[in-house]
Amino acid sequence: MKPVVDKPEVGIAIVGYGGMGKAHAYAYRVAPMIEALPCAPRVRVITGRTPEAVERAARAYDIPDWSTDWRTAIERPDVDIVDVCTPPGTHPEIVEAAARAGKAIVCEKPLASSYADGLRAVTAVRQVGVLHAIGFNYRHLPAIALMKRMVDQGDVGRVQLFRAIWLTDEFSDPDTPFDWRFDRGMGGTTIADLGAHLFDLARWLVGEIDEVVTRSATFVPERPNADGRGVQAVTVDDASSALVRFVNGAQGTFEMARSCVRRPCDLTVEVNGTNGTLFFDYARLNELWYGSRADEPGLYGLRRIRAEHPSHPYAARWWPMGQGVGWDTSFVNQVCDLLVRWPDGPWTPDLEDGLEVQAICDAMERSAETKRWVAVDEIRHG
Amino acid sequence: MKPVVDKPEVGIAIVGYGGMGKAHAYAYRVAPMIEALPCAPRVRVITGRTPEAVERAARAYDIPDWSTDWRTAIERPDVDIVDVCTPPGTHPEIVEAAARAGKAIVCEKPLASSYADGLRAVTAVRQVGVLHAIGFNYRHLPAIALMKRMVDQGDVGRVQLFRAIWLTDEFSDPDTPFDWRFDRGMGGTTIADLGAHLFDLARWLVGEIDEVVTRSATFVPERPNADGRGVQAVTVDDASSALVRFVNGAQGTFEMARSCVRRPCDLTVEVNGTNGTLFFDYARLNELWYGSRADEPGLYGLRRIRAEHPSHPYAARWWPMGQGVGWDTSFVNQVCDLLVRWPDGPWTPDLEDGLEVQAICDAMERSAETKRWVAVDEIRHG
Amino acid sequence: MKPVVDKPEVGIAIVGYGGMGKAHAYAYRVAPMIEALPCAPRVRVITGRTPEAVERAARAYDIPDWSTDWRTAIERPDVDIVDVCTPPGTHPEIVEAAARAGKAIVCEKPLASSYADGLRAVTAVRQVGVLHAIGFNYRHLPAIALMKRMVDQGDVGRVQLFRAIWLTDEFSDPDTPFDWRFDRGMGGTTIADLGAHLFDLARWLVGEIDEVVTRSATFVPERPNADGRGVQAVTVDDASSALVRFVNGAQGTFEMARSCVRRPCDLTVEVNGTNGTLFFDYARLNELWYGSRADEPGLYGLRRIRAEHPSHPYAARWWPMGQGVGWDTSFVNQVCDLLVRWPDGPWTPDLEDGLEVQAICDAMERSAETKRWVAVDEIRHG
Amino acid sequence: MKPVVDKPEVGIAIVGYGGMGKAHAYAYRVAPMIEALPCAPRVRVITGRTPEAVERAARAYDIPDWSTDWRTAIERPDVDIVDVCTPPGTHPEIVEAAARAGKAIVCEKPLASSYADGLRAVTAVRQVGVLHAIGFNYRHLPAIALMKRMVDQGDVGRVQLFRAIWLTDEFSDPDTPFDWRFDRGMGGTTIADLGAHLFDLARWLVGEIDEVVTRSATFVPERPNADGRGVQAVTVDDASSALVRFVNGAQGTFEMARSCVRRPCDLTVEVNGTNGTLFFDYARLNELWYGSRADEPGLYGLRRIRAEHPSHPYAARWWPMGQGVGWDTSFVNQVCDLLVRWPDGPWTPDLEDGLEVQAICDAMERSAETKRWVAVDEIRHG
Repeated sequence: MKPVVDKPEVGIAIVGYGGMGKAHAYAYRVAPMIEALPCAPRVRVITGRTPEAVERAARAYDIPDWSTDWRTAIERPDVDIVDVCTPPGTHPEIVEAAARAGKAIVCEKPLASSYADGLRAVTAVRQVGVLHAIGFNYRHLPAIALMKRMVDQGDVGRVQLFRAIWLTDEFSDPDTPFDWRFDRGMGGTTIADLGAHLFDLARWLVGEIDEVVTRSATFVPERPNADGRGVQAVTVDDASSALVRFVNGAQGTFEMARSCVRRPCDLTVEVNGTNGTLFFDYARLNELWYGSRADEPGLYGLRRIRAEHPSHPYAARWWPMGQGVGWDTSFVNQVCDLLVRWPDGPWTPDLEDGLEVQAICDAMERSAETKRWVAVDEIRHG
Repeated sequence: MKPVVDKPEVGIAIVGYGGMGKAHAYAYRVAPMIEALPCAPRVRVITGRTPEAVERAARAYDIPDWSTDWRTAIERPDVDIVDVCTPPGTHPEIVEAAARAGKAIVCEKPLASSYADGLRAVTAVRQVGVLHAIGFNYRHLPAIALMKRMVDQGDVGRVQLFRAIWLTDEFSDPDTPFDWRFDRGMGGTTIADLGAHLFDLARWLVGEIDEVVTRSATFVPERPNADGRGVQAVTVDDASSALVRFVNGAQGTFEMARSCVRRPCDLTVEVNGTNGTLFFDYARLNELWYGSRADEPGLYGLRRIRAEHPSHPYAARWWPMGQGVGWDTSFVNQVCDLLVRWPDGPWTPDLEDGLEVQAICDAMERSAETKRWVAVDEIRHG
Repeated sequence: MKPVVDKPEVGIAIVGYGGMGKAHAYAYRVAPMIEALPCAPRVRVITGRTPEAVERAARAYDIPDWSTDWRTAIERPDVDIVDVCTPPGTHPEIVEAAARAGKAIVCEKPLASSYADGLRAVTAVRQVGVLHAIGFNYRHLPAIALMKRMVDQGDVGRVQLFRAIWLTDEFSDPDTPFDWRFDRGMGGTTIADLGAHLFDLARWLVGEIDEVVTRSATFVPERPNADGRGVQAVTVDDASSALVRFVNGAQGTFEMARSCVRRPCDLTVEVNGTNGTLFFDYARLNELWYGSRADEPGLYGLRRIRAEHPSHPYAARWWPMGQGVGWDTSFVNQVCDLLVRWPDGPWTPDLEDGLEVQAICDAMERSAETKRWVAVDEIRHG
Repeated sequence: MKPVVDKPEVGIAIVGYGGMGKAHAYAYRVAPMIEALPCAPRVRVITGRTPEAVERAARAYDIPDWSTDWRTAIERPDVDIVDVCTPPGTHPEIVEAAARAGKAIVCEKPLASSYADGLRAVTAVRQVGVLHAIGFNYRHLPAIALMKRMVDQGDVGRVQLFRAIWLTDEFSDPDTPFDWRFDRGMGGTTIADLGAHLFDLARWLVGEIDEVVTRSATFVPERPNADGRGVQAVTVDDASSALVRFVNGAQGTFEMARSCVRRPCDLTVEVNGTNGTLFFDYARLNELWYGSRADEPGLYGLRRIRAEHPSHPYAARWWPMGQGVGWDTSFVNQVCDLLVRWPDGPWTPDLEDGLEVQAICDAMERSAETKRWVAVDEIRHG
């Protein structure tokens, strides 16, 4: 008997060891089990600022090496892909450095803490010509991918209304101490943290957004420092809601809020078209609801599609019908979608998509500040 | 044995024989079975413009008399209450006439097709001093009334976010012929038809609304005439969404749309406060979802309260726990709430509430037209 | 103008003023609003043993007369229909008397406290030839009636499996004092109280039941007397479950339990056929779930039919799509179904159906006692 | 920097490359990311009868070696654990061989195709004294493990009723060709395939089962051969249902059916105790429903616990609250639960548990054949 697995290895450096670092490390580990990849991904190193913490993370995520110096780590010759999992405000600098080092880039969302900063990152990858991707992982969830397929094949007709709501209670406790998530400079707005996914889905499912009007609130204006001494001003929104016009004439409603008690991570997305409705509720992430005008009147209602049928996107590679997948599957599918195109690409969604979403985030912030409708073009054109 | 039921009769004239006329007639009939009323309601007459149709309605609703002349009908000496169930644009004139005739008034929502018209109606009842009520029937639904009780007793703390969405597919078929619902002059906007209920609940549960921004769309700009000859321009919105600021600092998101395929009448209302969340989904109208920060962490989640416990509002008068009530119960409870206060009142919600809601409707329309935030006071002050 | 309503009156005597008495009184009151009846039902009198209580009930249900002497009441010349709402053990005697008085009979379920007693009642109505009906009201619920229609038109193919579960917490508190419901002699078994409805639906939807095996438990063997002095032995089951074989080869599973905490009245019914599945959950009584083998694979799942479409049974007479009805609608529809056939009939389901269900109840009890499969024919043939 | 991961390796041979082989391979791969294991699991080899298929599986599951000779594979010195994923009828022989080779054993459920055969396997492991475990993976699902914790800590009081229903449509298409699943000799009964999990949960949550009565049906008595030539008699049940008595006096209802159209893998488990109810629906596998008699009456209902709180079993090692896990998590948690006890054990559930479940399966089959209540002891004592 001979070894059956003999694929070229692809080395990965993960920058950032928080929740996203873990999810990405997990995905690289699982991907080869789920899809016939042309290469064998190997996470070589993970980086972070605090030695003890990053070492602990390396052990926990079963990664062979760690470092507190991301610049050196991403330049290792055995590293092909730099996977950026740090707070948003630090993304552009890391992306630029990785591009200059000629590495392919996978960057978590949001791309940056501003359109201008995001543009810097995108400019760098454009100049060098490396492969790049952005972590809009929900596109890779089976039910969401099915939603996309059904919209594209006309199952709802022309989209007229889009709504997306994401409620969490991450910020609902006023005693949660200040950290980077409450700091505008690090890019931790609720608009960007939750909204970026929603705007990405809106662009993907419906089309470009033309203009927005937004209202934001910060219900807990200051928070205790982690060391218990003194407080710090919160410079991000707890909750924002927005109305938008799409270029194609559809209109959309968005809400993102991290101040909703006992709403852990409750995301819903709905599309109403001339001929049908599609509805997704993340709390039941293996399902997609669908109603068509073409249905027999006597069967009036929505179907609860079990988005696990072998004919559905991603489903056949996972488990038998009805068994269900979890959040991690979106990251694993994302890695598979990238690595099956290694090393030639193209990768999608990429940092250009991230930049477009950043423009929407910025437009929303500007609208909330100025209390007026803001065209996304205003942001794009400075 | 002597007759056990010997209460003074209260005569009612119902003006308008459509769906609302039926629901109100039903409610007067049922109310005495459900609550110990101080009086015996008797619907004496129902009116409408087309003799055949109104006679058919009188038979169908088991009403002893009918008329095509509402003015005469409401002046009948055996009529004590005039119940107005016509299209909104006709309400003010009928309310004024009823007030002048010294009759108590129950008026369906929305109050009018504009704030100015609504003010005319309210001025009339103020001058004469008759009892008056507006048909915000959802306040009288057990689960909604329980929501109110829980908000008032502090179960969610201070309200920070409110959202209400009402989706129907009433207008989703472009072949549905033109009628008064598509005619701005008759007051049939989606903002007013669906929104009026939502704004009423917002005011009741959270407080006064300060300012609004709204976006509206009319996806089907013209519709065939009922006689099949030619088309007519639709002058109302198919769908509108809005952001609002409440005077107390809470913020709200609203959506009302009649263009959502296979969404028959899907209304959700949610309140997020500093200490808890309450969520209502009309498709499960006997339930109310509740989560509290005070819950044990190990029980993290929302409770599905069966809003039928004898301790809940309205519940004890209806059926055993778990059996469930329907839409009609809101109308029956409404009649009971009014008639137990006959003839002295006060009645609530009343036309003043209707007028405040009308101000919000008008502010929303103005915002949609002018693409800016509009203070509700702008409407109130002309 | 002339009175529009001039139908012959039909007089009704309701025997028994408890929950069922109320539901029936309600239904007679509402029915004329909901369906074009050939007659005007008038509840003339309600009876019960305790004067204060029955008088209070008469007032509460808006009934003009009351009595403690049911025999006299049912013989009143202005009474055409005797509606029996007393505990099951008393039904046969009342039915016999009503039949002898030549009155039509509506009898609540279960028919009796034993097959032998039930047969006495049926024999009486057979001899006299009066109209008779049994109160299997769930047949008249829109979603259940739709289920029947869909089974009959072959939407699930040949039925192979049937399951019905009814859980309540009526008996879950051991401090609930003893009353007739705990007394075998009065017919208050859980098998009969909850099961009778389930067995009726099974017969209606699938066909006759051939044999059964049952297990029963009485978890609270004695209960305090209502006066607080001493305890009394409970002689009924708290919970029973059963397997059955249908004559046509299908098999069924049943469970009925009144000892389930926080399960107020949770009834589910499912049919699995060669080509489809139908599922009903009473907690969402306006919905019916359906899946067909003929559905596109890509839409795999169940549809949530909103059982309120105008094309559905009973729906058009009630409210607009999506508004929802409650428990009472089953009683109102039942009255309509009977009175539209007044005075010639036939009425269905009738006491013969009640007797067949009683045979199943008795077979279940015998099986639980003898720990063996029992053929329903054993009961029928003594 | 030094390598952070330097644990002793544990070699695994997976026998059988079907769906279970994949799930187990997946779990060994993921486990080190999810839990701090004392060892590094390495799947060395996978085996099967058809060379092409097993080689393809080895590639697909990213396993370095494969073989068609399981006997040789399990004896490899670099193999410490033999993981048995073949059809049930083959388990005992492989378990015996592995035990004789001194290897630890993980065996998929059901243990065998009969109690006698299962006893052979158990006798072998008893004699040799190796570690052994059985693949009742649902015990390791977070919501189910939470259910167990809550039962054990008395949250429902004394259990009175247990019900478990598992519906699939695996066998609903009569054109599905014959394979081992339809062959009694290979152990593929529905009682064993679906029921084994349910009986395990029943024993774990409630206690030992005393006696059973069962009804079985085979709706499709013969199936086409895979090569399209001729048909073969189906020797297993399509559907079975059962009533049971637990030793502690509780009673249970079970149903397992593979003939339910559009029911892909729908498993529900409910426990009703003297003080509370717990309900689990696999279609929403990250949730657990709970109601307590101690709840405030005004909050009457069930709570939808999001079984992802960091305080819940297994939850902290996975994803943030509300993100959700899938089926695979049960296998990963199972591997972790075993390997954290490597090499000393004890492991639980083990083959003794598998044997007890086998006794219940056999009792059910005997009951279905003999149409009588069968004590599980009858099976245990031959």
